[in-house]
Amino acid sequence: MRVVVPVSGSDPKTRLAAVLTPDERLDLTEAMLADVLDALTSVGLEPEVVSTAPVDCDAPVTVDDRGLDALVNDLLASTAGESGESLAIVMADLPLATPESVDRLVSADGDVVLAPGLGGGTNAFVCRHPDFRVDYHGASIRDHRRIARDVGADLAEVDSRRLATDVDEPGDLAEVLLHGDGAAADWLVDAGFEVALTDGRVTAVRE
Amino acid sequence: MRVVVPVSGSDPKTRLAAVLTPDERLDLTEAMLADVLDALTSVGLEPEVVSTAPVDCDAPVTVDDRGLDALVNDLLASTAGESGESLAIVMADLPLATPESVDRLVSADGDVVLAPGLGGGTNAFVCRHPDFRVDYHGASIRDHRRIARDVGADLAEVDSRRLATDVDEPGDLAEVLLHGDGAAADWLVDAGFEVALTDGRVTAVRE
Repeated sequence: MRVVVPVSGSDPKTRLAAVLTPDERLDLTEAMLADVLDALTSVGLEPEVVSTAPVDCDAPVTVDDRGLDALVNDLLASTAGESGESLAIVMADLPLATPESVDRLVSADGDVVLAPGLGGGTNAFVCRHPDFRVDYHGASIRDHRRIARDVGADLAEVDSRRLATDVDEPGDLAEVLLHGDGAAADWLVDAGFEVALTDGRVTAVRE
Repeated sequence: MRVVVPVSGSDPKTRLAAVLTPDERLDLTEAMLADVLDALTSVGLEPEVVSTAPVDCDAPVTVDDRGLDALVNDLLASTAGESGESLAIVMADLPLATPESVDRLVSADGDVVLAPGLGGGTNAFVCRHPDFRVDYHGASIRDHRRIARDVGADLAEVDSRRLATDVDEPGDLAEVLLHGDGAAADWLVDAGFEVALTDGRVTAVRE
């Protein structure tokens, strides 16, 4: 199985700009990427990184500044499409990914196996069908279910909170502090973040 | 295994007051409860409901207006404590619960098996240890991990997005629309809610 981790390496995670400087957002991006790569390599996979700008990580990096749809659809056409090899796409901002959650993704039966993200995204998927393609705009999980049905692919979904937790907004940082034990959690603690209690759900605040 | 579903039946889901009337909040509460009970009975469990006020559902209901900690700790003491029977506590506001996710919870090995909620909560757990007790205030998942360690219980966690998605705030309604196919999703659609696209994650809006 070919495994590709797309990264937005140029001015990443702009929705965290209220709480992190540009340099810090790049540092956190690399820490999250390290956590994802750790989880993938722990189960024997050999991930490749495709980034819009150079990033520092323990995997081969290709710089490609195309948008996500063009990039991933090209990979789908050449891998699951032409060579017939399975392709897994795993987003780089999933710092709660563990070997177990990744193993559930790649071991699940199905021509297309989706790992939904919170808020309608598609945080990871495995494709074993030549005709499946992606459309990451909007509520992509619904589009990906529809596209899989339209091409006649057997569809499965992985029910994982860890794979569902992508980090885009300040509110997501609390999840990393509560449940992470990797590079991203360490980075947030070193940067002074801690969990704060509110009336409802907890948040992350900086000292 | 004894299974108890605690419900807040009197003025429930106040954090949804901006988008739902009091009657609607009770209706949605009962729809979510129906989804949870469906998932539990589908795997052969016989759930009991304990509610702070009468609710309409397909399970025996006991009305008990104590707070959640007192209620659940009493159940823990009498069930896992005295009689030695396993006890599962499953919150009533988990409309994405499925037979599969519930089965993973009750089948997991461990003296204490926790299903974390988004934002630091504990949405469900199984207890097979006489001394484990709960404290639902604040980031309860961290307290429950600590309490389990303190009493020497083997601790496990279930990695389920479906069990992690409790419905407390307007933003949670989109998850039900995106991933639910039960009574709560039907209720929201009938009430005029639909998924709306924003720059980031999707939200639920009412027509």
